Amino acid sequence: MTELTIVPEPTPTQTPAQTPSTAPVETRAAAAIAECRLLATMTEEAGRITRRYLTPPVAKVHDHLRKRMESLSMTVTVDAAGNLRGLWQLHPARPEKRLVIGSHIDTVPDAGAFDGVLGVVLALELVAEAQAKSIPIAIEVIAFSEEEGVRFGVPFLGSRAVAGRFDQALLDLHDADGVSLEQSIRDFGLDPSAMSEALLSDEAVAFLEIHIEQGPVLESEKLPLAVVTAVAGQTRCEVTFTGQANHAGTTPMHLRRDALIAAAEWIVAVEQVAERHPQNVQFDQGLVATVGKLIVEPNAGNVVAGLARATLDVRSARESARLEAVEQLLDRARTIALVRGLTCEVRHKMDQPAVSMDEELTALLADSVEAAGFPVRRMPSGAGHDAMVMATRVPTAMLFLRSPGGISHHPAENVIEEDVAAALEAGGVFLQRIAAKLSMQN
Amino acid sequence: MTELTIVPEPTPTQTPAQTPSTAPVETRAAAAIAECRLLATMTEEAGRITRRYLTPPVAKVHDHLRKRMESLSMTVTVDAAGNLRGLWQLHPARPEKRLVIGSHIDTVPDAGAFDGVLGVVLALELVAEAQAKSIPIAIEVIAFSEEEGVRFGVPFLGSRAVAGRFDQALLDLHDADGVSLEQSIRDFGLDPSAMSEALLSDEAVAFLEIHIEQGPVLESEKLPLAVVTAVAGQTRCEVTFTGQANHAGTTPMHLRRDALIAAAEWIVAVEQVAERHPQNVQFDQGLVATVGKLIVEPNAGNVVAGLARATLDVRSARESARLEAVEQLLDRARTIALVRGLTCEVRHKMDQPAVSMDEELTALLADSVEAAGFPVRRMPSGAGHDAMVMATRVPTAMLFLRSPGGISHHPAENVIEEDVAAALEAGGVFLQRIAAKLSMQN
Repeated sequence: MTELTIVPEPTPTQTPAQTPSTAPVETRAAAAIAECRLLATMTEEAGRITRRYLTPPVAKVHDHLRKRMESLSMTVTVDAAGNLRGLWQLHPARPEKRLVIGSHIDTVPDAGAFDGVLGVVLALELVAEAQAKSIPIAIEVIAFSEEEGVRFGVPFLGSRAVAGRFDQALLDLHDADGVSLEQSIRDFGLDPSAMSEALLSDEAVAFLEIHIEQGPVLESEKLPLAVVTAVAGQTRCEVTFTGQANHAGTTPMHLRRDALIAAAEWIVAVEQVAERHPQNVQFDQGLVATVGKLIVEPNAGNVVAGLARATLDVRSARESARLEAVEQLLDRARTIALVRGLTCEVRHKMDQPAVSMDEELTALLADSVEAAGFPVRRMPSGAGHDAMVMATRVPTAMLFLRSPGGISHHPAENVIEEDVAAALEAGGVFLQRIAAKLSMQN
Repeated sequence: MTELTIVPEPTPTQTPAQTPSTAPVETRAAAAIAECRLLATMTEEAGRITRRYLTPPVAKVHDHLRKRMESLSMTVTVDAAGNLRGLWQLHPARPEKRLVIGSHIDTVPDAGAFDGVLGVVLALELVAEAQAKSIPIAIEVIAFSEEEGVRFGVPFLGSRAVAGRFDQALLDLHDADGVSLEQSIRDFGLDPSAMSEALLSDEAVAFLEIHIEQGPVLESEKLPLAVVTAVAGQTRCEVTFTGQANHAGTTPMHLRRDALIAAAEWIVAVEQVAERHPQNVQFDQGLVATVGKLIVEPNAGNVVAGLARATLDVRSARESARLEAVEQLLDRARTIALVRGLTCEVRHKMDQPAVSMDEELTALLADSVEAAGFPVRRMPSGAGHDAMVMATRVPTAMLFLRSPGGISHHPAENVIEEDVAAALEAGGVFLQRIAAKLSMQN
């Protein structure tokens, strides 16, 4: 393997990156953070970071990233789903196996500056590094247009198109203003009928997503990075206890059918069932179960509650754990209702299986983290990511950065400069190893 | 005692009642129910029974009841608090000891037809009976203007004025439209500066309130009537658990500070503490404790709750039971918060002592119920009533009628004709016995 020999001659379009990748990694990390903060100013709402799918600030982000991609001599396109894609090839004229790196650029309302965006900025930083260090690998960077599901209520629109999982029926979705997904694509200057052209190239051999953890685990263990083993499967349902609203002063305890107490008893059980699962095992974060929303009716201090509707959200990378816990908890809800003379109605809202990351690619990523000098913490992701969709199409790995305070989807969302530097160092090693592997396969 | 001799000669103004009190008691009961249904049509909202303090339908009710009172040869006045008062005297020219009977004519929004109003209608029916049977007793009937606290947020405005407990500062209260209590009194054609004249006459020797139970106890025990022993004391407070909102997918169970689970654990404890108290003891309904309202923040299915604010409503006729339970439950809330690493804030909203009914008068009422052929069930009232305020001024007793389904403050609120007949029969005996007692005292 003679890396340097296959790097193409610099051409006039291959201007150096804004932050030379030969700069110290701390400088590059600081620049990446600054870049995320700059992109955060491209928002729908003054003073808040809100950037929904194909809204005007998305075009601003595209303009900005396009310039950066072009400065890296990348070939830039926007596919029919609105994904901005930049391709760096060693020999632009001929097909080359490529590594794909990316994450999303849409945000939730009143978001932080790093969720998604950081993964795109670091992807471009890795392209710059590949060029500066003459690592012989073609890289496609994808800034996915939609992951959060805010505008049309369905997430992963961008990665679905790339992974060939974009159902045409999605085009009929409408946003809160009554604009169809199809129309929003046209309004952005794109052609919804060309959706199939967004499909990932057969030359793509691997996908890497770098993302903030969005949870407190790395912080609690004082670690900068984690290698994601799987995206947890998820069940969401709604459990409604119906009893009888009654006067709180005149109804003795034994004649009540209090829906809130039934829900309370069940919520305590939800925690108990979840806590039976191991939480801190290295390769398995176990299971989380959450009642995050509770609606009480009539919800008056002097009226015994007649109805209590609770959400249930159960996630685990282990399918059996999740399915068993859900079954156990719904049984428990029904038993509590029965004993108390209430009714219990269950509505299933989502049942999404766990998605494993590619074992070999994940091992390679873990080796890269270790070789860069950082401890390897493996963990599943409790949140959904584009990597979960991409994994259905191409071997996929995912790298987490510590989230200070575990905070995300909030203006206080942040990253630590040292962790961004660690991600860049591990990413640099990963590029080397992927390149070596491809070179060996050739 | 020669009852008949002290009945005054009929005068031209003493026309017979609309339903002759010589009619069978079932007929009189049916007529009373029909009268309540008719009064229910006098409402602020078409299709719903809503009659707040001093609103236009109150004037309609006054007109209607005034005619009825005049047909019974009663002297009718409206005091400065808007209470409609009719006085039946044996010898109109000279002071006479009088029995006062009454309840309220205001309603909650979307109310039933019997809460309060039935007590006024039956009071007039008892006046008619006293006249028809020549029971030698003067009776003042009071249709209290305000008991529910809906319009100005403070209950018992009518009975406060009659009991001499109307704080002048109340006149500065404002309703939702910004109208002051003082102005609302003027708008109704009354003089707020004359409030002190509403004070109950020194000739009043006893107060009787007849009211629906508003609870399920009599129905569950298949009894028509109950004699109220006390109005339960009541504590209301608000308990706020504050933890940390977190991502439901990425936050392992052991790193959560879930405010909703803390609240749920506490709500279960509230029930346990309340159920330790005896519920069905003849003279004491024990204690009721209710969490009727729960506010969760952010209240999203995929976010661990950061805040949960619960109301607590504890009532008992036994002061020690109530105060101990409240202390125990607030301690429990603080312990739960401490163990879970949350904070717990308690706000006291109300601390109202229990009010006992007059022992002698209540015994007389119980004897009357028994003499009329019905079982005597004594119970405290868990809800507040005008009788509670009147008891501070004059010996007071209270009679409950069974509430089908325990339902009140709802359009489905109802009474059973047989129970109304039972109340009339017991009330008739009560009049006889009070009259006899007064006669003996004279």
